[in-house]
Amino acid sequence: MSALFEPSGVITITTDFGHRGPFAGTMKGVILDRFADAKVIDLTHEAFVHWPAEAGFWLERSFRYFPIGTVHLAVVDPGVGTDRSVLLVVAEGHAFLAPDNGLLGGVIDAVEATVIKVDDEQITRLALDSVSATFHGRDIFAPIAGELASGNTPVETLGQVTQDFIPSLIEPPEMHGRELHGIVITSDNFGNLITNIDKGMLTSFEQPMVRAGGHKIPLRRTYADVSPGDLLALVNSLNVVEIARAEQSAAELLGLGRGAPVIVVEGE
Amino acid sequence: MSALFEPSGVITITTDFGHRGPFAGTMKGVILDRFADAKVIDLTHEAFVHWPAEAGFWLERSFRYFPIGTVHLAVVDPGVGTDRSVLLVVAEGHAFLAPDNGLLGGVIDAVEATVIKVDDEQITRLALDSVSATFHGRDIFAPIAGELASGNTPVETLGQVTQDFIPSLIEPPEMHGRELHGIVITSDNFGNLITNIDKGMLTSFEQPMVRAGGHKIPLRRTYADVSPGDLLALVNSLNVVEIARAEQSAAELLGLGRGAPVIVVEGE
Amino acid sequence: MSALFEPSGVITITTDFGHRGPFAGTMKGVILDRFADAKVIDLTHEAFVHWPAEAGFWLERSFRYFPIGTVHLAVVDPGVGTDRSVLLVVAEGHAFLAPDNGLLGGVIDAVEATVIKVDDEQITRLALDSVSATFHGRDIFAPIAGELASGNTPVETLGQVTQDFIPSLIEPPEMHGRELHGIVITSDNFGNLITNIDKGMLTSFEQPMVRAGGHKIPLRRTYADVSPGDLLALVNSLNVVEIARAEQSAAELLGLGRGAPVIVVEGE
Repeated sequence: MSALFEPSGVITITTDFGHRGPFAGTMKGVILDRFADAKVIDLTHEAFVHWPAEAGFWLERSFRYFPIGTVHLAVVDPGVGTDRSVLLVVAEGHAFLAPDNGLLGGVIDAVEATVIKVDDEQITRLALDSVSATFHGRDIFAPIAGELASGNTPVETLGQVTQDFIPSLIEPPEMHGRELHGIVITSDNFGNLITNIDKGMLTSFEQPMVRAGGHKIPLRRTYADVSPGDLLALVNSLNVVEIARAEQSAAELLGLGRGAPVIVVEGE
Repeated sequence: MSALFEPSGVITITTDFGHRGPFAGTMKGVILDRFADAKVIDLTHEAFVHWPAEAGFWLERSFRYFPIGTVHLAVVDPGVGTDRSVLLVVAEGHAFLAPDNGLLGGVIDAVEATVIKVDDEQITRLALDSVSATFHGRDIFAPIAGELASGNTPVETLGQVTQDFIPSLIEPPEMHGRELHGIVITSDNFGNLITNIDKGMLTSFEQPMVRAGGHKIPLRRTYADVSPGDLLALVNSLNVVEIARAEQSAAELLGLGRGAPVIVVEGE
Repeated sequence: MSALFEPSGVITITTDFGHRGPFAGTMKGVILDRFADAKVIDLTHEAFVHWPAEAGFWLERSFRYFPIGTVHLAVVDPGVGTDRSVLLVVAEGHAFLAPDNGLLGGVIDAVEATVIKVDDEQITRLALDSVSATFHGRDIFAPIAGELASGNTPVETLGQVTQDFIPSLIEPPEMHGRELHGIVITSDNFGNLITNIDKGMLTSFEQPMVRAGGHKIPLRRTYADVSPGDLLALVNSLNVVEIARAEQSAAELLGLGRGAPVIVVEGE
């Protein structure tokens, strides 16, 4: 057992593989082959393709709801088959495993984290016998996750602590005069627009209003605080500012999506 | 152990969250944190958003296929963050947990059910320390489901039996003269149109025919009883009338969906 | 225990049911009701509807990543409710259960397989008490899979070995002069076009090039070997030729999909 990380047997998987084809399922097969008692939970397989930032955002904002000792495996990996590194991050008793491409930047920024670059020899030792050039999720990440979750391989043995990794691809929001400038990171199934503006950043406003897509939107507590069809902003369950439309889709009405500017201003 | 409900450790989850984002996954994290041996099964996360009736329909028509002692958690919750109640229904040895918004109306109507309004103090006791205004599925329902499935908290202790709850949002089919008038509830991945007309309602017809979308459609036993591309009606695996098109999509051909009228008449 | 097949407790499910509705979930309920310790993994529920070949392809190319002793249940079943047979295939220590409609043809061709036609009496013995005309996945296949995975029912007792089954619906690639003619089977979430051309078939070319959709495409090792937006072909993680576009969708650019011709030629 490791002082840094004591596994609970739970593994989450986050990918951009979607649900067509056997890709996420095959990763679970590899995990069970290494660790028959693993409890594997899908976080999402519909992360934006080729953009590790959204996957990292979901992970950073939800990992604390899993048992201490969970291994969080995230594979959004446009650089698969190149010599990009494999990162192992340990934070608050959770372990995170992902390509070194900025995916874990948000997790590392948000918490006190130990960042380990997994040694090539450890990768070779733990990976499947035959490693493909296009699916390291199955051939490298899944076996390592199974090992970590089983407790057979302590995190310390996998590599060296490093400060040399790709940072988050998302700039944090910035104050410009008396305006806080953030962006939309993603949207959910209801068409709610989810931003990178943390709840804590609102404290410098007395009566915050949100400007987005040419609309000025009041900050409320929950969806039912406005009439169906009306826009509102709120602090959502991920503790960031969200732009919503009661019982309808804000994304559709505003025509906004990933990267769209969102500005918090002082209300009148 | 409770006389009403003895948990099997199985929990099903039904939501309108879709598969984008970590929402359903996070609920499972919370459940495992409360009850490490839970067996969590997704019923569907693609229920119609903001319309609890479809989720309730799926649940009512499928719960009997799960082990006695299953906790069925269903969250289609447009009133999240308001003071709508939390219902716990016990029926045929299964427990159902959902917002009090009509979602469980069909289950309650279909079987001999005990309906319990969960006490506010019990909610406070079992919920996460910090309850968001937008995601009670994670903060309130998942912890209670974990408690129920673990057997640590018997159903009787959670609240009082009540007759005061929101009924089903779907009117049952009605006889108008010699015609039975129902509606389409939803469709499936094949474009089969699924109605609220129970098999038992057909017994008053000698040779039932179905009228929908301007077509008169014969009742058959299974898809292969007509030629590919032909319309048919049948009693489907949920024991309701379904309008199908052999190897193709009836929903597409007829242009019908939720709420469309479906009439059973006597064939000539 | 059976010499042919010793169950690991793992079951995979492959269907064309999509994620709307409770269909795949209900199959898991039935499995857990038969075998409470089953570990059920979704391979995919987004196989092409009514075309068993794709489901069979995914299965053939991924089953080896699951523990020996896995039961692979696959239901793409346009003939549900007719008297088509139920096949049980045992190969390399894995068991496969599917309708006899060509779905398992690829698995049978690819490996040394024992093919068993499941006896009608065994189906009746193991199926649910009431078998619907439209959902044998739930009523017949899931209970048998649970039995097999539990070890209660050895494969040998389920029926007789047969050579009489529907073969694969996909023709293997053929040499025409010095050209190898294959087809696109399917695509993945990234828009990569996946063909039926096995890696092994490339050995007769010195410098293979791929022709598809009017383009002549070089064979590379991995996506990053060309510039973003450029087309490439590669041997993918399923060991077949794939046509890809770095960080973009080849399927969209080329307008190709299932059945499109793909030709391997000698490069100049």
